[in-house]
Amino acid sequence: MTLFDKHRATLERAIEACRTRQSWTAYDKPATANHAAFTSLLGRPFDDDGPGAWHAQDDEVSPYTGEPLGVSYRRAGVEELVEAATRAWPRWRDADPRVRAGVCLEMCDRIHATELAHATMHTTGQSLGMSLTGSGTNALDRGVEAIAQAYAAMSRVPESATWSRNFGTSTVELVKRYRLVPKGVAVVVACASFPAWNVYPALFASLVTGNPVIVKPHPSSVLSMALAVRACREALAEAGFDPGLIGLAVDTAAEPVTKALVRHPAVRIVDFTGSATFGSWVEANAFPAVAYTETSGVNSVLIHSYDELQPVLRALAGSLCLFSAQMCTSPQNFYVPRALAGDFAEGLAEAVRAITAAPRRAAAVLGAIQSPATLALLERVRQEAAARGEIVLEPTAYAHPDHPEARTSGPLIARVDVADHDLVAGERFGPVAFVIGCDDADQALGVATRDAREHGAITAFAYSTDEAYLDRAEHAFSLAGAALTSNLTGPMPLNFSAAYSDYHVTGLNPAGNASLTDDSFVTGRFRVTQSRRAPAGRNAPASG
Amino acid sequence: MTLFDKHRATLERAIEACRTRQSWTAYDKPATANHAAFTSLLGRPFDDDGPGAWHAQDDEVSPYTGEPLGVSYRRAGVEELVEAATRAWPRWRDADPRVRAGVCLEMCDRIHATELAHATMHTTGQSLGMSLTGSGTNALDRGVEAIAQAYAAMSRVPESATWSRNFGTSTVELVKRYRLVPKGVAVVVACASFPAWNVYPALFASLVTGNPVIVKPHPSSVLSMALAVRACREALAEAGFDPGLIGLAVDTAAEPVTKALVRHPAVRIVDFTGSATFGSWVEANAFPAVAYTETSGVNSVLIHSYDELQPVLRALAGSLCLFSAQMCTSPQNFYVPRALAGDFAEGLAEAVRAITAAPRRAAAVLGAIQSPATLALLERVRQEAAARGEIVLEPTAYAHPDHPEARTSGPLIARVDVADHDLVAGERFGPVAFVIGCDDADQALGVATRDAREHGAITAFAYSTDEAYLDRAEHAFSLAGAALTSNLTGPMPLNFSAAYSDYHVTGLNPAGNASLTDDSFVTGRFRVTQSRRAPAGRNAPASG
Repeated sequence: MTLFDKHRATLERAIEACRTRQSWTAYDKPATANHAAFTSLLGRPFDDDGPGAWHAQDDEVSPYTGEPLGVSYRRAGVEELVEAATRAWPRWRDADPRVRAGVCLEMCDRIHATELAHATMHTTGQSLGMSLTGSGTNALDRGVEAIAQAYAAMSRVPESATWSRNFGTSTVELVKRYRLVPKGVAVVVACASFPAWNVYPALFASLVTGNPVIVKPHPSSVLSMALAVRACREALAEAGFDPGLIGLAVDTAAEPVTKALVRHPAVRIVDFTGSATFGSWVEANAFPAVAYTETSGVNSVLIHSYDELQPVLRALAGSLCLFSAQMCTSPQNFYVPRALAGDFAEGLAEAVRAITAAPRRAAAVLGAIQSPATLALLERVRQEAAARGEIVLEPTAYAHPDHPEARTSGPLIARVDVADHDLVAGERFGPVAFVIGCDDADQALGVATRDAREHGAITAFAYSTDEAYLDRAEHAFSLAGAALTSNLTGPMPLNFSAAYSDYHVTGLNPAGNASLTDDSFVTGRFRVTQSRRAPAGRNAPASG
Repeated sequence: MTLFDKHRATLERAIEACRTRQSWTAYDKPATANHAAFTSLLGRPFDDDGPGAWHAQDDEVSPYTGEPLGVSYRRAGVEELVEAATRAWPRWRDADPRVRAGVCLEMCDRIHATELAHATMHTTGQSLGMSLTGSGTNALDRGVEAIAQAYAAMSRVPESATWSRNFGTSTVELVKRYRLVPKGVAVVVACASFPAWNVYPALFASLVTGNPVIVKPHPSSVLSMALAVRACREALAEAGFDPGLIGLAVDTAAEPVTKALVRHPAVRIVDFTGSATFGSWVEANAFPAVAYTETSGVNSVLIHSYDELQPVLRALAGSLCLFSAQMCTSPQNFYVPRALAGDFAEGLAEAVRAITAAPRRAAAVLGAIQSPATLALLERVRQEAAARGEIVLEPTAYAHPDHPEARTSGPLIARVDVADHDLVAGERFGPVAFVIGCDDADQALGVATRDAREHGAITAFAYSTDEAYLDRAEHAFSLAGAALTSNLTGPMPLNFSAAYSDYHVTGLNPAGNASLTDDSFVTGRFRVTQSRRAPAGRNAPASG
């Protein structure tokens, strides 16, 4: 049985799910989390057969223990990585898309079977649960989704056609053949706090369309990506392909290689997740490579009206606390009619305290803060907010029950007025909530959608008992390029984004130019070439 | 009956043709060519209701008569054009894709019914026949093809979905709505010699996906585009939309506006046809707009073996003479095994003379030379070729039977050796053929595909009785991003490219980054946004 046959049902089901956008997952069972498998990796060279000599990755320090992981990775130069990718390319490039799809889906299964969760936890700061789901099965589902969308796009090009047409009194017949040709070396630049969710779609969209890929993890968050890349390389080798097709570019904060990778003349595709500033640089400088970016944005909550406030507050507090708001979909700006703003802010703070006060629950929801820089930023925001408004909830560390040295912080909640809008217009990465008193929910809609257009936004949330208001809000956020979720309470995290169903990022505002997973995310990664042949003896000499 | 209903069968048939890539046309009957309708336009203001005051277009001089057309066009500033487009946008943006598809197909019919052929002839230099077909029905077919591909891409996104999933012991249900949002102002920059063929696909791909479009014709080749834009604006107005949605940016060679248009901050899409140098500038500078380019390349012919030489020579001579090789698909470099090169060159010259010596036939095939610069370039190439090789056929004017003042030239045929490859590596625009003596056809394949990768190429042609050689050639040209046509003789022009069937340009080499019409040509012109709403009373407060 070929790998394509083995995974055909999954592929077909995934294509169907993309079409209907209903709920589905290729991974009903969560991955496992074996702590011993993780600790066996620590303090030693990471065993793979890539190019380059081993160097200790001093930037990789667990947000939970404060200790360096002590893993050494092979560090290869940009030229070396590009050469390895280019060398491995031809067989993969010339393989049938079915073969590539089978191998890519096998890679996904391999990643799912790999002990990644503790590595994710101790690099990103995510809780173990989120490492297993958000960075595990949900992220892999986005990878499978990308494979499905790319495969569907490739399948729309027929392999051949017999074409005939009259010219004058003669009929000309041509046999045409259409070939799918991948663009070339792809680079995937990952962020520190949630790499899997963007790396898997980018990696598999480029791979399944036939390109070699170099994954460039954040220097403080390498291990889970190194494990995933190794799993993929093993699957490649077993399928008879050169594992050098997938490279791992390990760099350091002091000596980053991202710009050199992006500007390398052989690179044709760049996927980037990270800051808006760097993302803009990539978009402007990737040429002749095509760039797919997700950067950052300022996500808003609009409070118009509600039947019952408590479920709303619980849902919002949960979303604000989830991974300490270190997600690109975390809400930051809560617009509340001025008269209600005080009570709302107090209620939100109370709902947050209900989470942060219980250590086990706090650990499961908030996890840890990936970077010390986030705490420093949080302190600056706290000072600014105190000078301009009122601090309703101080951002205080909670005591992690298993990791007393964990870098943690509950959210800052500050109450300001819409007159102080400059304070809240851009993204403040980390656990920050501004409760913004405004004239009314329509003013809020205007301000929030303008912020989305100018500073980027991925999601927004609205609460209203007035369907007409929600219609207006959906239209306005649609034009501003942010997904709007309305009136959601209950157990689903507000900012949960479902593979196969939820488009993630629109490309209509500065939060990124690429969408998981629309056709434009996959169709630029390969090209169609064609040939035409006159059948022997046909189209013979017409009288000149 | 709505316009969508009126054109639904055409749309469905076009989508089917794109899928099967078999021969089809929406326009069985050629357009008409009424000379009086053309002359009534000359020497006066062009009647439309766009912004700006009328200015005489001194750059527009007929290649057939040497006389200025004397047409005055409204000249609006870049800001004015962008404002008009932006003002007209919202209703079109918010219209259903079916409505937009109906109006766009109505526009195509209007263009087909417009007297464009003489305007095309007296600006581009094309023969009247080519003005009716290549710039008429064939170009419109590429427009319909773009509408079909874009409509199919939009149709793949469902309007809504009901999604449900278990979280813990609860089931969360969300009603999701997906909206298609166009990107924004699109600019279409046309070339002088064959504007319709690239403008129609770009114009309609952007329009049908909901964007306003500003068409920027070449200053020496405005009239046919002004007529087409007017036809589209009339169709828009009759359908109840603001005709300002489509603008015409008229500039002059002395004061070009293309760069200002491309760099305007409101512009989100740029389609460009023109020189490789300007095209590279557009690709590198269009950001944040997405750029689709077709520039230029050097197209090769490989002679490996044949049953009969005369039909091959006739086919090649016809392609070389067609519109005096002022097409992006015209062959330039003819690689012939060294021992045969002399005879081949003489035979090709003889076959060319059979066309150029008969004035009516010459007029129908060669047409006129669009720009005096092409003749100047031809003379420079002639001098270089004479110094390095042998002039086999001097490029001489033929006497046009109807227009004694026509700017004409038969092709230059020069015989050189592959050792003088630097002379032939890049495109020499105009009627230039190099017969290049080489060791053998495999050497030729290596050189020609390297030229394609380095300098760009759209098409290539091979003649061989050895299927294995053709297989090698197809593979190599596929990777180099040029379409290969093999063993074609007879009445079909070698470089005829059929809408719905032939992909035009691959994006794999410097001849352009966009392909008519693959999915990536259409999917980046709109984005998907989404909203999610909890049904009233559902997802109610779970116990916190």
